Formats: sequence, structure tokens, C-alpha cells
Amino acid sequence: MSGNRTIYLPLGGAGEIGMNAYVYGYGKPGEEELILVDLGVTFPDMDTSPGVDLIFPDIAWLAERKDRLKAIFITHAHEDHVGGVGHLWERLGAPVYARAFTANIARRKMDEHGLKPEYVQTASAWPETIEVGPFTVGFLPISHSIPESSALVIDTPDGRFVHTGDFKIDLTPVVGEAFDRALWEDVAKTGVKALICDSTNVFSAHEGRSEATVGPEIERLLSEAKGMVVATTFASNVARLKTLAEAGKRAGRSVVLLGRAMRRMVEAAVETGVLRDFPATVPIEEAGQIPRENLMLIVTGSQGERRAASAQLARGKHHGIEIGDGDLFLFSSKTIPGNERGVIRIINMLSERGVDVVDDSAGRYHVSGHANRPDLEAMQDITDPQMVVPMHGEHRHLREHTKMAQARGRQGVLAVNGTMVDLSGNEPKVVDFVETGRTYLDGSIKVGALDGVVRDRIRMALNGHATVTLVLDEEDEPLGDPWVDLMGLPETGRSRQPLTEVLEESAAAALGRAGKKVLKDDDALEEALRRAVRNGAQDEIGKKPEVTVVVSRLS
Amino acid sequence: MSGNRTIYLPLGGAGEIGMNAYVYGYGKPGEEELILVDLGVTFPDMDTSPGVDLIFPDIAWLAERKDRLKAIFITHAHEDHVGGVGHLWERLGAPVYARAFTANIARRKMDEHGLKPEYVQTASAWPETIEVGPFTVGFLPISHSIPESSALVIDTPDGRFVHTGDFKIDLTPVVGEAFDRALWEDVAKTGVKALICDSTNVFSAHEGRSEATVGPEIERLLSEAKGMVVATTFASNVARLKTLAEAGKRAGRSVVLLGRAMRRMVEAAVETGVLRDFPATVPIEEAGQIPRENLMLIVTGSQGERRAASAQLARGKHHGIEIGDGDLFLFSSKTIPGNERGVIRIINMLSERGVDVVDDSAGRYHVSGHANRPDLEAMQDITDPQMVVPMHGEHRHLREHTKMAQARGRQGVLAVNGTMVDLSGNEPKVVDFVETGRTYLDGSIKVGALDGVVRDRIRMALNGHATVTLVLDEEDEPLGDPWVDLMGLPETGRSRQPLTEVLEESAAAALGRAGKKVLKDDDALEEALRRAVRNGAQDEIGKKPEVTVVVSRLS
Repeated sequence: MSGNRTIYLPLGGAGEIGMNAYVYGYGKPGEEELILVDLGVTFPDMDTSPGVDLIFPDIAWLAERKDRLKAIFITHAHEDHVGGVGHLWERLGAPVYARAFTANIARRKMDEHGLKPEYVQTASAWPETIEVGPFTVGFLPISHSIPESSALVIDTPDGRFVHTGDFKIDLTPVVGEAFDRALWEDVAKTGVKALICDSTNVFSAHEGRSEATVGPEIERLLSEAKGMVVATTFASNVARLKTLAEAGKRAGRSVVLLGRAMRRMVEAAVETGVLRDFPATVPIEEAGQIPRENLMLIVTGSQGERRAASAQLARGKHHGIEIGDGDLFLFSSKTIPGNERGVIRIINMLSERGVDVVDDSAGRYHVSGHANRPDLEAMQDITDPQMVVPMHGEHRHLREHTKMAQARGRQGVLAVNGTMVDLSGNEPKVVDFVETGRTYLDGSIKVGALDGVVRDRIRMALNGHATVTLVLDEEDEPLGDPWVDLMGLPETGRSRQPLTEVLEESAAAALGRAGKKVLKDDDALEEALRRAVRNGAQDEIGKKPEVTVVVSRLS
Repeated sequence: MSGNRTIYLPLGGAGEIGMNAYVYGYGKPGEEELILVDLGVTFPDMDTSPGVDLIFPDIAWLAERKDRLKAIFITHAHEDHVGGVGHLWERLGAPVYARAFTANIARRKMDEHGLKPEYVQTASAWPETIEVGPFTVGFLPISHSIPESSALVIDTPDGRFVHTGDFKIDLTPVVGEAFDRALWEDVAKTGVKALICDSTNVFSAHEGRSEATVGPEIERLLSEAKGMVVATTFASNVARLKTLAEAGKRAGRSVVLLGRAMRRMVEAAVETGVLRDFPATVPIEEAGQIPRENLMLIVTGSQGERRAASAQLARGKHHGIEIGDGDLFLFSSKTIPGNERGVIRIINMLSERGVDVVDDSAGRYHVSGHANRPDLEAMQDITDPQMVVPMHGEHRHLREHTKMAQARGRQGVLAVNGTMVDLSGNEPKVVDFVETGRTYLDGSIKVGALDGVVRDRIRMALNGHATVTLVLDEEDEPLGDPWVDLMGLPETGRSRQPLTEVLEESAAAALGRAGKKVLKDDDALEEALRRAVRNGAQDEIGKKPEVTVVVSRLS
């Protein structure tokens, strides 16, 4: 017993899919030296976070211990792994390590926030390693839906920990490194203490399909297309972009990349040598001169995002190009749960324009980037770890993955965000619970998810808003009646009188009932007016608005 | 040529799934006598209709012609077909016809609105018919996911029109009438002018499965369950309720029905003789005494509704029952697109309690109530109509269904809400476009979807709200500085000063710049203050709130 321990603490990504941020530590309890794996974002929705621009993990715990933080490692360039780097780096201040393509993307993010690109260091792949404090960390190539994804091999005096990052087992990934079983077996040879493992597709019972199987299907589809072809996929899926572009070329079409995120990804992939022989593309400005049947657009917006190229095209002209009768639109992507409404809206808009839409419902034009259950089992067999720590999943995924590991005779531990696990012993041991949460980027300001700001906005969205103003003179006597202004409420209710007038009467009546003591007391007066207006509205329109009361006193 | 025509005009349900309302007319153009088929609702969502309680089709066109409206026919008791009857009947005032079970449900809705149950008349099934004006209408039994669903056989002097309502071709539907091919062939024998047909599942390429195939799968699942079993499905799917309850019984479990909607449906089905030999159930109050392994709850909330029994159970105790480790929760239902987030939230909450959740991802524990593509083709073969008019679908469904009919050598017409089609001739002819839309039930008040009420609420949800108040004296001189109150906005921004103070400074500066002319002019003054606060907020927090300005003048 050295008195030291190796700990694992997810701050984001465990109990959700998104905003990954995993802390590892080694040292004496409470004094561990720390590293962070990934620093991602997640995306807001109207149900829970209206008006919010971006969501980060709450890194307060780590920021308070930044003197012990030795480095940040980024496994790959998906937004849910790298998206927080520019926004949050200043609070952590540790060097960022990533492989070339990921580092290229991370540096662009740092640059957007006026941070020096040198804070991001380019790491080489395994067997090269980086020593930071008590950790020796190596980037072990693994296949996923973006180039240069890596697992991390994290060695501490307690042994070897393998953090898979996002992965699938793909022997023919089109772009980037194929899964190299021999290499992985070699890494595992010395023994793996714990496998910290992607859980996304634990409910998918069939073996995963290779990226290479998509190409022939897309080529077949394109060979039969008569008009213009528009295809959308995730901007970061460089392999898919290549597959699509090559299929377009082979079908005799000029290829246009549309959407900033997509051009940026291809640029980064070419700059870092990850992407070679990508078919020549045509700038959108020249697309107008090309006959429709010889044109293929590859566009952003596979999730129905309102401002992306796919939505713009569905709404009408975009960069002079109009999609219409006889054209084909291909979703070479899956719809992330929660985005269905947006995607369906675009499909219907395209349908109204006479466009034939092909999506992935038949499972032909897209494959997942995550390991399905049999591949997760294979990963356990290959690495043969003493413990399995499921991550990158909602609670249901982590739970199922834990059960699966246990059913196969391994130690498994279900650790959601904030659960600190000691991985030093012969079995995982939960040693602490740390407060975690979400930070919202709201306009240009960061607010805590529980600060109440967004809660108030949701309430106004549900209930509307009423402003009540009242002026009192120097003797606390009302000067005239209370005044009501409304927003997001109907103009008339049950009585057919203007709702403002009805509520002004409610407020005036409350004022009439108020004694001298209430009139002197701002809080009591505001509360009386608020209650009067809410109850008046309940009678008149069946709902209680949020109320702002402003009492002005002459003095 | 009689100078008369038969017209079809969807007011809801064509171009969406929900709020079905289809008008048929016969007579001289502009003077047709009218009937309405179905009067349903659709459900709000946070993205487009926050705070709204229910959505109806805008029936203004029909209400303006209520003197020509002879009757309302309800095909079946799903909310998207009957849900508007109580809310909208007074504006139409025509007798409602439905078969016994549907009429039972419709009368309950009328009763809730203080309307006489006699307005709803119970119709018998085909070959009985009802004559209203120039129409002879028969209720032709057809299988669906609720008892006593019926197609309508609508005869006018122009010929026979078959309106399928929602349907599937099910020869063993567990509850209610099996699809009777011979009967349908008999109806079609005299020739069918137009088939107005359900389009929901036109993209499902495989043949539909019978309700009867679900039972054995559920029994197998239950036979292996160790703890309590909770199953959810649509409350109106009486056949499924029976299947679930019988499977529970057979597995030696006492069955509890939980959720008002569910008990109401079973009650109506028993009252009208549709449902016989439903297994005896146990009141929830007695469930506590029953050993968990002998207990089965059948609950509402298959779509993740926050207030339904399934959500209550997932959150904790409900009626003294607590679901937990070793229990099984079965979704015997599909998730309607758009409801994924809510359903997944409940699954994760159940996962946190240690509950095993089984859903329909494997396709074993649920079958659809709608005809898949091969069954839609069969329906065309059986009825052999001159024209096919797809309905009950989003634009993409209607378009695909129209193309499918045309590819099979029939006339097809894509008619979305508001499209008036003349079905008298040899081919469908679009003769008019009528303004349609949505009416929101908001609290107790009906507002038009485009009235701006909900738009303002969405804006407040996205941008927050600021109130600016200012008092001016008799000479139009400000008495003190403008005052700012905020709701749904952060407390501080870029400068770390309280945001209210920063915005009060912005408003005060604008006031300082305002000349005598602006100070006299309420509109100009309000606009100046609004602009100052919005721009001040943009600088400080990167977003422009909605602003209410209240100027009080002493006089």
C-alpha cells in the first residue's frame, strides 16, 4: 500500500450522451494529480433550455483544483468531445494534447477565443506516449466516424487504464486507421486494470457494419437519380463525405460542398494529411452553370437545424440554387433522438417542392460510428480488463453495459457524472460524490443551469407575462389606477372585454382593499397586486401569467 | 350534367397527422349541402406552441356555412378524430353520428361542455345507412387500434365515395370486428368513385401484423418476470389492454388499471358491449397488499406525458406503489415522432430505480393500427376506385400515397388542408383553396395560431423580458431615472455590474438624448427606451430581450 490511488470522475458524459469530460487522478486521497479527458459540449432544446446557445459541463470542481491539473487530452474532434475547449480553457489553464487532425480543430477553437494555438500540442500515436505527472498517456488509434479517433492508454503506478473514447470496430473505415486488433492485443498483453468504455450502442444487438458498406448503396442510388442530388451527413464524418463525393464523381456529377462546418472539416483533414485524393469540388457560385443532372450538393443540416444548408434549400433558393421537382435529397445520417421534429419538417418542406427524399429508415445509406453490443463484447475480450467502467451513455446505457460486463464475469461499475471511483484495488470502489451540473452559454454569458434564468423563461413561454405599474405620491396615496401591459396573452377572455382592462380592474380592486400599511410596504403591495392579476387572469382566461410589478413612489 | 357536384375539402388532417376534419359537399357550386367527417384535435409542443393546451382545426369556413351543414360523422374514438366535438360543437350545431362505443365517448365530451348528449346519435353498422340531405352514409366496420372503427360509405348522386378512416387489415383483431373482405367487396361491387384513404404507414414496406400476434410475445415476457410488472400502451387501445390483462392473469398476477383515460375507455367499451370477458381488475388501493411478483399494473403515459401514471411511477411513489429494483416496465406502444425525449427521460428515470425497461425496438410487443403499403395496395384492389384521395398524413405521406396510386394506374390527387376537390367527374379536379389553420385552446380561451400570442411567448422564452418604467411630470419632465426589471435574464453580464443597473444607465442615456418632442410623444419615447435597452443588453449579455415600456404621466 503506497497510500496513493487512481481515481476516475466523470464531470460530463456519464448519464447523458454529450458534453464529455472525464477526470482521472493519481496520488494521495484529496491530493491526486489530475488529467482531463475530453471537454465537450451538448446542445440546447426548446423543452428544457430555450434561448440557450450551447451547454457545457460544470467544471467548477476541476477549476478549483486547477493547480493539480496536469493536462487535457482530447480523443477526437466531435463537438461533444472538443467543443468546450475554447470556451472553458482559461478556467483550467493546462496544456491540451491531441493528434494532428483533432489538434487542428482544437486550435481553431482556441483562436476564436483569442487563445494561443501553442496551448494545443500535437501528439503522435501509440507507441509514443506523453508523461504528465504520474501518468503516461498514449493515443491508441481506433475507428470511429471522424478521422484519427483515439483511445487513451493511461498508465499509473496502479496499472494500465484504457479509455476507449468513441469507437466502433471497423476494418475498412474508408478514411483513417482501421481497427488494428493485433495492436490492441499487444497493448493489453501487460494486463488492463480497467476498461472505460463507450456505451452508446449497447442496445444494438447486431454486429456493426463497416463504413465501406455504405459506398456501393449510395452509388446504386445515385446511378438512378435523374435531377440534382443533394446529400446531407454530419459535417465531421469525413469518410462519408469522401464516399458521397466519390459516388457523385462516378455518376458523372460535379460536387459542391455547402455549409461552413463541412468545408472547415475537409480543410482540416486535408491540411493534416488525413484526407488524400478527395475528389475536386466546385464552388457553389459555379453550380448554376452546371446542368442539374450533373450536379451533386453535399450539405450540412442532417439534424434539421434551422439555419443549416439543408433547411435553407428546403425553404427556397440558397446561393442561387433551387431544389425542386425531380431532384433527390438523401439523408446519409441518423436522426439523433429529440431532433425528429426538425428533420421531419424539412422532409415535408422538400416533399412540397416535389423532391424525392431518401432517408436511412432502410438502413442502407448510413452506418453508426459506435460499437454495437457484440463489438463491445469483443472489446472486452481483446483487452481482458479486470474492471469495466461504462461511459458515454445515458443511465439506461450505462446500466445495461454494466450488467452485460457483470454477466460476462467482470467487475462493472455504474458511475454517473459526479461519481468518484477508486480504480486502484481489485474492484471498483465509489469513494465520493461530487456536485456536477450544466453551464449554459446564453448569448455571450455563462449561467448555471439551476440559476433560475431559463426556468423563468420557460414559465413565461407557458404562462405569458403581465406588467403592473402603479405610481404613489409622497403620502403613499395612489396617483391614478394601476396600469397593466401584457405579452403573450390573448387580447380578450371570457367577458369579451379587453384583458388589460379586466386585469386593471382586478388590480384596482386589490388596491382599494389595501390598507395604509400595505400601501407603505413595497413587498406587500407588489404581492397584493401580483395575486390580484394572477387570480383575475385565471378567472378570465384560465391561466396565471408571470407578473412583474413596478411601484414608483414620488419623493 | 345536373349542375351539381360532389366536393371534398380537408380542414385538418391532410398535410399533418392529427386534428382530422374532412368536409364533403353535394349541390350547386357554392351552395353544396355539407357533411363533416371527424372533428379531432392535435397536441401542442414546446417548440411551436408553448403553454397551449390543445389544438383544433380552424373551422371558420364551415362555421360560416353552418346552415348548409347537415351532420357530423365520427369514424372512431381517437382524440385526433373525436377530440374537438365538445369544444367546437356549438359553432356548428349539426347532429353528430357515431357507432355505439364512439358515441359513448363523444357524449362524455359533450357532457363536459354542458352540451346535451342527444346531439350525439348512435348509428348502426352497414348495411344500415343514414340519409342527410343528398347524402346516404353508412358506417362500414374496419379494423384499427380502437373498437368499432368504421369507414364511411358516402353515396351522392355522383356515385359512391369510400372514406376509410384510420384502418389496418386485421383478420384477428382481439377486440372488435375483423376485417371482412367479402363485405368490402360487396360494397365495392356497384363501383367506387373515389377512395379517400389513410396514408399514415405508406412508407412501411412490409405487410402489417395482426393484433393477435402480440399476445404470445407478451405472455412469454411476463412468464419470465420476477418482480412487479408495469405495462403502458395507448389508453384507447382496448384490444391491447385486454391482451395485457389476460397475459397478466395467465402469469398469475392481479391486474390494476391505472390512469383516468384508461379506466374511462374500458368503462365505455364494457358499457357498449364492445368488450366482454375483460379479466377482473383490482383497485389500486388494494395493490399494496399483493406480493409484487403477483402484481401487474397497466398504466397510461406511453408517450412520456409528464402527468400520466408512467411518469409518476418513474418519479417515485404513486398511489402508494413504488417501482424499483427487479421490476419490469413494458412499453407496449410506439413512440410518436416528437415524443422521443419525453419517453427516453422516463426510461432513464426507471433505469435509475433499477427497473428493467423493455420497449418496442425489437418490434415484438406492439403492432401499428395503420395499414402498411401492401395493405394500402390491397385496399385499392378490393375497392377498385376510379380515384384515390390520400388523407391522414403529412405532406410526404400524401405525396408518396398519390404516387403509389398513380403508379398502379389510378387517378390520384394530393390535396392538403384547404384544397377543395371536385370528385364528380372522371378525374379529381382542384376547384378552390380555402383558408385553413389552427386554433389553440390556451387556458380557457381559443386563440388563432397566427394571432401572435404564442409567437410573443416563444420570443420571451428565447430572449427573456425587460420592463422599463418611467414617470413624467405635468411638464413632460422625467421624475427620476427610468427603472428596469428583468425576467429570464442573467443577473450580471460582461461588466460584472448588475444587469438592471447597466440597462438603467442605457435607458437614462437615451432619455438624456431625447428632445422635448420625444418626451411629449409616448410612442417615440417608448421606442427610444426600448431600443436603448435592447442595444445595451446586446453589448452586455449578447442578446436582445423583449421589452415592455410603461410611461406614466402625472396629470
